[in-house]
Amino acid sequence: MKVTEDAYGQQLQAQYQSQTATAEIIERDDNYIDTGSKAGLYFLEYEQWSSTEKQAVAFAKGRVLDIGCGAGRHSLYLQRKGFDVTAIDNSPGAVEVCQLRGLKNAIVRPIAKVDEFAPNSFDTILMLGNNFGLFGDSNNAKLLLEKLSRVTSPEALIIAGTRNPYQTDSTDHLEYHELNRQRGRMPGQIRMRVRYRRAVGEWFDYLFVSPEEMEAIVAKTAWKIKDFIEGEEPDYIALIGKNPDMV
Amino acid sequence: MKVTEDAYGQQLQAQYQSQTATAEIIERDDNYIDTGSKAGLYFLEYEQWSSTEKQAVAFAKGRVLDIGCGAGRHSLYLQRKGFDVTAIDNSPGAVEVCQLRGLKNAIVRPIAKVDEFAPNSFDTILMLGNNFGLFGDSNNAKLLLEKLSRVTSPEALIIAGTRNPYQTDSTDHLEYHELNRQRGRMPGQIRMRVRYRRAVGEWFDYLFVSPEEMEAIVAKTAWKIKDFIEGEEPDYIALIGKNPDMV
Repeated sequence: MKVTEDAYGQQLQAQYQSQTATAEIIERDDNYIDTGSKAGLYFLEYEQWSSTEKQAVAFAKGRVLDIGCGAGRHSLYLQRKGFDVTAIDNSPGAVEVCQLRGLKNAIVRPIAKVDEFAPNSFDTILMLGNNFGLFGDSNNAKLLLEKLSRVTSPEALIIAGTRNPYQTDSTDHLEYHELNRQRGRMPGQIRMRVRYRRAVGEWFDYLFVSPEEMEAIVAKTAWKIKDFIEGEEPDYIALIGKNPDMV
Repeated sequence: MKVTEDAYGQQLQAQYQSQTATAEIIERDDNYIDTGSKAGLYFLEYEQWSSTEKQAVAFAKGRVLDIGCGAGRHSLYLQRKGFDVTAIDNSPGAVEVCQLRGLKNAIVRPIAKVDEFAPNSFDTILMLGNNFGLFGDSNNAKLLLEKLSRVTSPEALIIAGTRNPYQTDSTDHLEYHELNRQRGRMPGQIRMRVRYRRAVGEWFDYLFVSPEEMEAIVAKTAWKIKDFIEGEEPDYIALIGKNPDMV
């Protein structure tokens, strides 16, 4: 099996080059396999976004960091609106697509290295498209929230989407939650990889949490959940500001 | 890995029950993985078919046997037009979907057992949706063409779709052709299986041939290619009648 780190980027590049909307294929470590998002999702224009995403992006202010930018749909929209946008993704293929689409400031950088930005560089952290998941697990989330605190202004806002993993009646998913509990992981901690043709991405953890679980993760960090924007179940988006008690 | 024989049927049942159009996931034995057909293909109504399929189905006459009927889109159309239609598929899930959709005569039976029908039972053999591929390989095709000859009338017609495998510039596909040549298989002989969520179908061979390769396979059988209906590359449909020289 030809393993590459960037099956994800390859599928975005193929969609960009062929101008066709396809669905990415995601494999979970219980051998569950499915298309991960609806065909063409990464290239949707603002008019085609969910109303939840439209509501959420309206909270963007100042200097914006888009984490896990994909094909750049959110960043390109904000750039056109005149925002100062920086977009990062750990996929070189994704970043190249962003650049080809006209995004001025797109960088290959994993979320773990977000502290390479200077202190007080951003006023908004954008983690749409379920990208709260990029925190990976509860401990890593706390570590990364600390790093995000350092690179943001005192009035900064994190806009982060996720999915409530418990809003499902799928036996496949419920059994996966149980498997995770047995091995000491959060139920919604998905170990997955992207497959694209013969390319096989690296395994990584992507975290889905209930609002209560998110509250527990964010508690005692420099951040505080300000509001939830309810989407179509199981999706929702959190608005997370700095916690004045912890500064 | 939970191996089942009917990942294919499960995905058809899920689409039928949820009324959503999804794409099936196909894995090839070189670990190439992709969606096998456009989302919802198996449930398309006549108006949404390709013009090639519309042309082809117009040649149906008399008693029709639909081999590899899937969700029954071709059979249901012909049944509504008043034809005497029998549909077979080796997938119990697919046949159940056909029955739920109102197909009167749908039977779980693999193409290999087509000789269980009585002699002279059919006037048309329908193998649309690339189902010439169900012949699997060249030798098996000749064997099955012999069986099909026995269960059909002297004026019978086979309407069979396939894809010219050489009309591609995909490195993945060209390298797979070469792999096949090295192991003594026809270049377009695809060893594949269907994956649906945690279900993994059995490996099977599905054969894509050029028009010249199809001519070579059909030669010296009881059949003779009468015409090709050219589709959008690489697809085409063959009209195959009885060979008067061989009866």
